[in-house]
Formats: sequence, C-alpha cells, structure tokens
Amino acid sequence: MKATVIGIGLIGGSLALEMRKSKRFTEIYGVDESAEHGKQAVQLGLVDEVLPLSEGLNRADVVVLAIPVNAIVRMLPQVLDSIHPQTMVFDTGSTKGAICKSVKQHPNRGRFVAAHPIAGTENSGPTAAFNSLFQGKVNIVCEKEMSDEDALQLATQLFASAGMRTVFMEPDEHDRHLAYVSHLSHVSSFLLGQTVLDIEQNEKHISMLAGSGFASTVRLAKSSPAMWAPIFEQNREYLSQALQEYILHLQRFQYHLMKGNTHELYNIMLQANEIRRILNGIPNTINEKTLVS
Amino acid sequence: MKATVIGIGLIGGSLALEMRKSKRFTEIYGVDESAEHGKQAVQLGLVDEVLPLSEGLNRADVVVLAIPVNAIVRMLPQVLDSIHPQTMVFDTGSTKGAICKSVKQHPNRGRFVAAHPIAGTENSGPTAAFNSLFQGKVNIVCEKEMSDEDALQLATQLFASAGMRTVFMEPDEHDRHLAYVSHLSHVSSFLLGQTVLDIEQNEKHISMLAGSGFASTVRLAKSSPAMWAPIFEQNREYLSQALQEYILHLQRFQYHLMKGNTHELYNIMLQANEIRRILNGIPNTINEKTLVS
Repeated sequence: MKATVIGIGLIGGSLALEMRKSKRFTEIYGVDESAEHGKQAVQLGLVDEVLPLSEGLNRADVVVLAIPVNAIVRMLPQVLDSIHPQTMVFDTGSTKGAICKSVKQHPNRGRFVAAHPIAGTENSGPTAAFNSLFQGKVNIVCEKEMSDEDALQLATQLFASAGMRTVFMEPDEHDRHLAYVSHLSHVSSFLLGQTVLDIEQNEKHISMLAGSGFASTVRLAKSSPAMWAPIFEQNREYLSQALQEYILHLQRFQYHLMKGNTHELYNIMLQANEIRRILNGIPNTINEKTLVS
Repeated sequence: MKATVIGIGLIGGSLALEMRKSKRFTEIYGVDESAEHGKQAVQLGLVDEVLPLSEGLNRADVVVLAIPVNAIVRMLPQVLDSIHPQTMVFDTGSTKGAICKSVKQHPNRGRFVAAHPIAGTENSGPTAAFNSLFQGKVNIVCEKEMSDEDALQLATQLFASAGMRTVFMEPDEHDRHLAYVSHLSHVSSFLLGQTVLDIEQNEKHISMLAGSGFASTVRLAKSSPAMWAPIFEQNREYLSQALQEYILHLQRFQYHLMKGNTHELYNIMLQANEIRRILNGIPNTINEKTLVS
C-alpha cells in the first residue's frame, strides 16, 4: 500500500514513522504547504517523497489528514471528492464535531474514518516527530457506523500497531470531554504564562526563580497557536463552559484566601488531591523527547 | 559537626542526604512529629537517629527547619531560644516575610539564615526524598546582613555542595516573585484538577481521555495541602494579586472565545509562546524521580 500524509508535523510525522515501522506500506508520501517542512520531512526520513496535493491523493491507498482542524474542515470534502474509490482517509484532529459535520452528506463518507489519537507534546513541525509518541495512548474514533468496514479496520489496525487502544464515541461527547481534559489545560497554561510574562517586564530576575512546578504547569504555553486557535474556535461552547467553571473555582479560592479561611483552602486542596486517581489512569507520556525542550 | 533536621520529608530528607554526602557531618539527627515518618527516615538512611526536639537541639551544631511555614513561624523563636551560642539554624520555607519577621528582634537572630531552596516535587514525606533534588537549582537567602558571617557561610556552602547557586533578596521581594512563579502555578493546578473532578462525577470515562498535557498541568494538584495552605495564608496579598491578574486574563480569553475573535486568541497564544525564553532559563527539573509518580 501507499500512504500520503497531509501535514508532516508532530502528529503526521510521528504517524509516518509508525506506518513505516508497520511494513504495510511500500511508499509514504508527504504533502505540506511549507516547502521547508517538506524538505525536513524527507531529510528526517519521515516520508519518501514530497508531492503536490493532487499527486499525493492520486497515488495514495491511504490518506492521513494531520493539519489544523480548520484546514481539515476545509480540505476534507475536497479530498473525498478527489480520491480513488478504494482509497481510505482518516484525520487526527483534536475536535470531531465540525469535522464530522463537514462530510456528513458526502457520497464518499464511508471512505473516511474520524479519528483523534490523543497524543502530543508542546512541540511542532517535522523535527518534533518521533517514534513511540502514540505508545500506550488512546485513539478515539467517532461515528464508526458511518465508515466502511475496511477503512475502519485499517485505521484501527494502524493505530494499534502504533501502540494505541481505539475507543468509539460520538463527536459531541468527544468534544465535550476534550474541552475539560485537554483544551482547558492549554488555556490555563497559556494564560499562566502570560500572567508571569506581564510581571516579568518589570521584574527582570523572575525567570531565575521559576522551578520545576512552574515549568510543568506552563509547558503547554509553548504549543502552536496555529494549531490551537482553530480547536478553540470549533469547541467554543464546551470550552467556554469549562473555562467558566474553572474561573468560578479560582474566584472561590481567592475569596477564601482573602477572608483568611485557611481551613477552606486546605479542604479544597485535599479534594483536588483526588486527581491522583485520574492521573494514575493516564499512561506516562512525559518521555525523553518531551524533556529535551 | 552534628546536624538536626526538623521535619524529615521531601526537602528535609533530601537535604539530610546531601549533608551526609558532603562528609562534614558525623551525625545527622531527625526530629519529626510523625513517629511513622521518623521510623521511615531511619530505615531509608536519611538520618542516623530520631530524637525528641529538645535533645535534637541540644546535640546539634546545625539545625535545619524543613516544616510547613506556619510551623516555622511558631517554632523558630523557640529554637533560637534553646540553642547553644554557636549553633547555626536555617529554614527552607517557601515564604520569607512572616518567617523573618518572627525573629527580627530575637537576640540570637544572627545564628539564623533565612533560606529557600527552590526545589521540590508534588510528593511529600520521607519516601519522597532523594539525592540530586537540588542539583542545578537556585537557593534564595533573605536578610543576609542579619545573619552572622559563619552561619551565612556554612548555609551557602551546604547548598552549594548540594548543587545550588545562592541568590540574595529581601523577604518582600521574594514573596512577591514567588507568588507569580510558584504559588500561582499551584493554585491553577489544584483548581484545574477540581474542575475536571467535578465533571468526572457524571462522566465516568473522562480519565481515559486525559493525555500528557493534562497530566503536566495538574501534576501539582497532588501536592500536600498541609504544606501549601500555610504558604498561601502567609503570602495572601501577593498571591491574591497574581490570582486576580490570572483570572482577568482567563476572562479576556473567554470573551474573545465567545465573540469568535479567533485572531485575538491566536495573538494571545503567540505572546504566551514567549514563555519559552523563561523556561529555557530554568534548569531541567523534571527528573527520573518525578516521572515515577
């Protein structure tokens, strides 16, 4: 089989590496709007060749869309228009509602699998790609009944060979959950970073005082705005709700802080300690590659 | 020399290990209000022997206070009352204003060094202690002119042998800076954890969806309430200010989110990306030990 990965960044590039490892593909092509990224992807051995979009679609048995979610919504219907009848397409976007909606009535909807491999680091571009990114992680597939059997099977097998367990879920449920466990974390991290940058303008030595705790909470503030702005836009309703709840928790904490209700602060933290339970269900994903940055 | 470490947890225990490594101490004693922790500290080889407070103070040339900051404020004056004239005392508390104030007029103030080694993990207790916790980190000493020369020198040397660079700062400046780069991170993490726990009560499978980003931002939510409640209480004014600024940033983000001003969201994130610069100034402190949890 031949695969074409559209968007050879952290996710697309890492997936290309996994596809190569699986030995099911004789050729892996890349399509990228950045010529520089295309060149890097070939040099790094992520893909064999960089092609224009039309040629990439023409040669592919499998097409992977690993581009920002607004670009997926724009491009996916065109991709399904252009592919050969047996070609399979799947995406890797962090939202699923708008993407599924964009091709709901498409005559080739069956060739598409709406996927979200939940994996990533704060880094982006082809140089951020690495083997084992997906190891032990969860992949979500939405509207599985809309996908043809062969396409669903291939996508599931590919993610399985990359070390992922696939779970099925409806797009709306996916977007609601991800607002809390992923998108909100990114917002909190970006704005924590901004708050500290603000004060740093007047306090030159503040960076010296930042420890590992700060580094951990603001790590995601290094993430790509081009990737995240469209995710936030598409998941606006659920993210806004999550953000509102978060802000209310912060305000309640501030109230008790100012009132000197230290025992209340203690109880709030004690409850939050429960998060250990959730975290223990998370595969350890802070790996070597992440730590380099 | 003989040292007594009061509070043999993550910080006290790790410091005891460093003191042992430095070979300047013939005996290292521990004092802990938890008999269980005392026993563990001996078993783990952190200290040679656990003593009652009075005996620990009687035998020590150096006393380290590594207990919650409210306990330091309460205990430090008594410790300075009880020590031999040549004994040196230093603390490791994450606030400095209230601690320095508690002994400002004490006749033995010179024997005390107000220190804050900026290091830690989200774990606590003797089992959380480990060698190399302090490697490459910064130690803050406040009101250095109030400490006797020999005490200041010994403290600085000890922290240096543990791999730390000592920086001098006034207590007020310390507390203001730490509100932003440390205490606020903890608050944001605790309440992010709480927000997700809230929704999880109704959504049983949410933990499955949490990825490495979430794990990173809520790692600090596992921290000890007994340690953090008094820190927040003592640094109430500055922390409340930092928290207010953070909330305003979040609210502005939510406004643009709801208005569909995606370009504004993009710009906010692009600005926040600047945090890379600050993070690059931070020693890499997410080490093996931290990753285990």
